[in-house]
Amino acid sequence: MTDARQHRRPPGDEPAPLPPGPRDALTDVPGLRVGHARRTGGGWLTGTTVVLAPEGGAVAAADVRGGGPGTRETDALDPGNLVEHVDAVVLTGGSAYGLDAASGVVAWLEEQGRGFRVGPDPAQVVPVVPAAALFDLGRGGAWRNRPDAALGRAAAEAAARTAPGAPVAQGNTGAGTGAVSGGLKGAIGTASAVLPSGATVAALAAVNAAGSFADPRTGALYGAPGPLPDPGVHAAARRRLAQARAASAARSTASVRPPLNTTLAVVATDAALTRAQARKLAVTAQDGLARALRPVHLLNDGDTVFALATGARPLAATEALADPAFGVHLRAGALNAVLAAGADVLARAVVKAALTATTVDGPGGVFPAYTELYGSELYGSESYGAGL
Amino acid sequence: MTDARQHRRPPGDEPAPLPPGPRDALTDVPGLRVGHARRTGGGWLTGTTVVLAPEGGAVAAADVRGGGPGTRETDALDPGNLVEHVDAVVLTGGSAYGLDAASGVVAWLEEQGRGFRVGPDPAQVVPVVPAAALFDLGRGGAWRNRPDAALGRAAAEAAARTAPGAPVAQGNTGAGTGAVSGGLKGAIGTASAVLPSGATVAALAAVNAAGSFADPRTGALYGAPGPLPDPGVHAAARRRLAQARAASAARSTASVRPPLNTTLAVVATDAALTRAQARKLAVTAQDGLARALRPVHLLNDGDTVFALATGARPLAATEALADPAFGVHLRAGALNAVLAAGADVLARAVVKAALTATTVDGPGGVFPAYTELYGSELYGSESYGAGL
Repeated sequence: MTDARQHRRPPGDEPAPLPPGPRDALTDVPGLRVGHARRTGGGWLTGTTVVLAPEGGAVAAADVRGGGPGTRETDALDPGNLVEHVDAVVLTGGSAYGLDAASGVVAWLEEQGRGFRVGPDPAQVVPVVPAAALFDLGRGGAWRNRPDAALGRAAAEAAARTAPGAPVAQGNTGAGTGAVSGGLKGAIGTASAVLPSGATVAALAAVNAAGSFADPRTGALYGAPGPLPDPGVHAAARRRLAQARAASAARSTASVRPPLNTTLAVVATDAALTRAQARKLAVTAQDGLARALRPVHLLNDGDTVFALATGARPLAATEALADPAFGVHLRAGALNAVLAAGADVLARAVVKAALTATTVDGPGGVFPAYTELYGSELYGSESYGAGL
Repeated sequence: MTDARQHRRPPGDEPAPLPPGPRDALTDVPGLRVGHARRTGGGWLTGTTVVLAPEGGAVAAADVRGGGPGTRETDALDPGNLVEHVDAVVLTGGSAYGLDAASGVVAWLEEQGRGFRVGPDPAQVVPVVPAAALFDLGRGGAWRNRPDAALGRAAAEAAARTAPGAPVAQGNTGAGTGAVSGGLKGAIGTASAVLPSGATVAALAAVNAAGSFADPRTGALYGAPGPLPDPGVHAAARRRLAQARAASAARSTASVRPPLNTTLAVVATDAALTRAQARKLAVTAQDGLARALRPVHLLNDGDTVFALATGARPLAATEALADPAFGVHLRAGALNAVLAAGADVLARAVVKAALTATTVDGPGGVFPAYTELYGSELYGSESYGAGL
């Protein structure tokens, strides 16, 4: 454990890691709410996650890096386009079919009178709901069981019911319900960090990568510094994964040879960002996926990161993140600190997804959880890496 | 060392890493030549690196991810634009001033009759030479000492003089001559990998990031799995870096507070890629920078990756890189394997730059080399990670 401890609790005068927010979750950004809805059993294994912005919406941007994206309303987020704010972002299973979940969120927002005002009547709004889908078709056993508008509405209503700053469910829920990555069960994970200025940067990820969050050669999580799993444990894990794959192949073809995978994420901050700055945050946060998943951003991923900036606090002029000894000075002011933290919290969100996923053994296949194969001792609890 | 060995030489049936090419260098892509030119001493500490494509040029693309780029002719690389091939790519020090180095390469190419044919006379060519600059102004002590057309020509001529498949000089040379990253001396590094189909993917990097290739908390190289440096060694390294920074501040302001940094890279393959596929390779290779440098892609970086595809061999239909146990199947055919290898070799190129840099103690500042502070035992020789 020595290596890991040194990584996590540096001795001496090394720069302190950023502390997480109270929940180490996306909801540490004041005003953001997260709701999950899922269907499991009876051929189902999929779901939808909705991130609700505060009343009045949030500045939003998206970066689509994967080669096989399934998205809706992302073009509206171009800084050159009309809509300045969005009221919700949808992450969903169901591939392109699952984008229907956004329809339910749009309908729910219209009922709330939330959206882009287009007429004199406050009810005349058009809610712009950017959405992205991941591929989990057939993982529950029935190819045609996909999130729909009702499930999207359920996720939006679940988000609306939460209290401010409520904890966010991780693991096999929402858009992570049917997620699988590198043969291991994928999931939802979330993490946050608080900058010296007090600004919060947080991320939520639905991990369904074509690549793996664990090194096939060692079983170590790419996004988590620490000791390597015991070689015997790793060898047993590989055998279990091979058995699971064979069992899955016997039960279903859909879940075994996905033409698409995709990791979806939302990174958010309460700092006031312009739309162009939010776009830069979405772009740089993809580095967190690069650190925690390998390979990533492939043609059969649709890896998409949304950025939300609530603007509750002005962007600080600077953040005291300098490490003079290593010269890591973030000279372009606080935006650099937000960008660096965005990549870090997204990498931790992927790690936490890996550590909170639970094994699924159903008609669509067998998808073992990382912690079933390797235990959770290596990386501590699901709160692993808070402050990493 | 156990952890590192397990990472590097996995036991049992784990998937074998990709082997490097004969030189573990960019020149393992047949037809590519690399030339460096530099000026040091007398207030100089900068240089230029030229990558020459084979006769007839190579398909090229660029991805500019940093927030402060200094580039030339990158717009011509847009897949929608006119020029299909380029004859050379230039990486240079000198920030925007250093882009003049490309002029010397253009002139040299014109003399060779190489470039985009625009008239009936074979001599009527316009060489399109994409170039990107990194910030090293003042690091030699004299603010105005920057690469010029003559230095660019010298680098092109040096490349032309090399034999096919010649080794590529690493360390403080070419565009890496004045490079500094996180207070440590930056440099040129290069690496390659050979896919099962026989296709080669290689990268060359000039590492000058605003961030660091070493973890300030431990001294470990982000891009290199392995044991952590001894805490005592790390503490001493931090003291030495603090002293170096103080000494640099006393000698020069330019080298201590750079408004720009930037890591520049070329990733290349002999596989036949379309311009759009080459663009995807440049984009995905940025993940290698994300894994080896932290933070990266900041506003004061101009991080730019060029991709070159010589097209000497058809892109294979598929690559046998699957790891069934972990389900890392690269289903979209061989392009995925090229993309994944591009990120991996670029991360290794950054590690090799870190391990080949040598300490500079001059009028522009004191920039200790990683190996001076930590030795090279942790990561083996400069050929570290070949086949990682």
